[in-house]
Amino acid sequence: MPQHNEMARFISFEGGEGGGKSTQIARLADWLRGHGQTVVATREPGGSPGAEEIRALFVSGGADRWDGATEALLVSAARRDHVRKTILPALESGAWVLCDRFADSTLAYQGYGRGQPLPMLRSLQEIATDGLLPSLTLWLDLPLEEGLRRAAQRRGGEARFEGLDLGFHRRVAEGFAALAAAEPSRFRRIDADGTPEAVSARIAAAICAHFPDLA
Amino acid sequence: MPQHNEMARFISFEGGEGGGKSTQIARLADWLRGHGQTVVATREPGGSPGAEEIRALFVSGGADRWDGATEALLVSAARRDHVRKTILPALESGAWVLCDRFADSTLAYQGYGRGQPLPMLRSLQEIATDGLLPSLTLWLDLPLEEGLRRAAQRRGGEARFEGLDLGFHRRVAEGFAALAAAEPSRFRRIDADGTPEAVSARIAAAICAHFPDLA
Repeated sequence: MPQHNEMARFISFEGGEGGGKSTQIARLADWLRGHGQTVVATREPGGSPGAEEIRALFVSGGADRWDGATEALLVSAARRDHVRKTILPALESGAWVLCDRFADSTLAYQGYGRGQPLPMLRSLQEIATDGLLPSLTLWLDLPLEEGLRRAAQRRGGEARFEGLDLGFHRRVAEGFAALAAAEPSRFRRIDADGTPEAVSARIAAAICAHFPDLA
Repeated sequence: MPQHNEMARFISFEGGEGGGKSTQIARLADWLRGHGQTVVATREPGGSPGAEEIRALFVSGGADRWDGATEALLVSAARRDHVRKTILPALESGAWVLCDRFADSTLAYQGYGRGQPLPMLRSLQEIATDGLLPSLTLWLDLPLEEGLRRAAQRRGGEARFEGLDLGFHRRVAEGFAALAAAEPSRFRRIDADGTPEAVSARIAAAICAHFPDLA
């Protein structure tokens, strides 16, 4: 099973749609750079040229274009490329890596959401990551209806997941809650309600608590 | 582990480069249609619209664009889509399915050729196929140098595998031999040397022996 290295500067942002992950990653990257740190902000699926090509297959088309197991295989292929080409080189260079979604999203979306077996998904995770996990996972938690309302406002070309039904999104939310409960030392729940500034302050506090050398 | 149904009309063609698989599939399809049969001729990676898009990622670019495990994940995603969208519907309709490469190629190329662990590859095979195997696998066997010479003559845009070194192709050939030895009831070795007509006659004999109701 993957182990997480408490000290690695690898932070993933997780949660349902509309929780403000990309906004908060940009703000945290600025904040860390202001502390003299080097930051690589990246995302999944994607984050390397090959993985972005896989992402294009993954996020376009109808909601039923791929079944849950095919999705899990595709996103795992993208994840392996992303880890090898982007995340590991960045960590080895001493940079911080801030990642918009990582392996927990596969468990939440394809596992809890689409009903694929968690042991199968964890075996794919091991193939994709060789055991690499974030040292800290920030779960941006927002009431389901509020997240979907926000996501609808920015709806663009990548709306395949927003198009799935409310029951699906509810199962995904329950999945994130279960994953966070199972790994309390890696997960920090962040209340994602409120202004971007308020949420950023909560995130900065969580970062300082996890990486006391930073302050 | 996947089980093969002796009677399913699902035939895969396997072997190294230049063995004449596509020519022989076209000839066997004609021959079966001449016997009043319905035939779906397909190929891997690919064989369904989604899987063909994944194939485009898989076969283009440099030989080291993806590592062995990423390749295995990508081709497994394509295989699952191909099985669900093309192979199973064709078999359920009563058609014959003639497939240019299937799961054995992943074991031979990514396993024996690239050194990925066979148990990992077999777990991906199970995820991709839900246990579906061809009832008959025709291994078109040709001396390595002759196959690579033929492949070089028709070299087109999909030359990524031909670009790998001779040691790689030798390990792949040993892989097919080992897979055939391990499942003698599913595999038939076909001597692929000689004219297309001579090879077709050997294949027709193998088909008649395996499906005695056809004659």
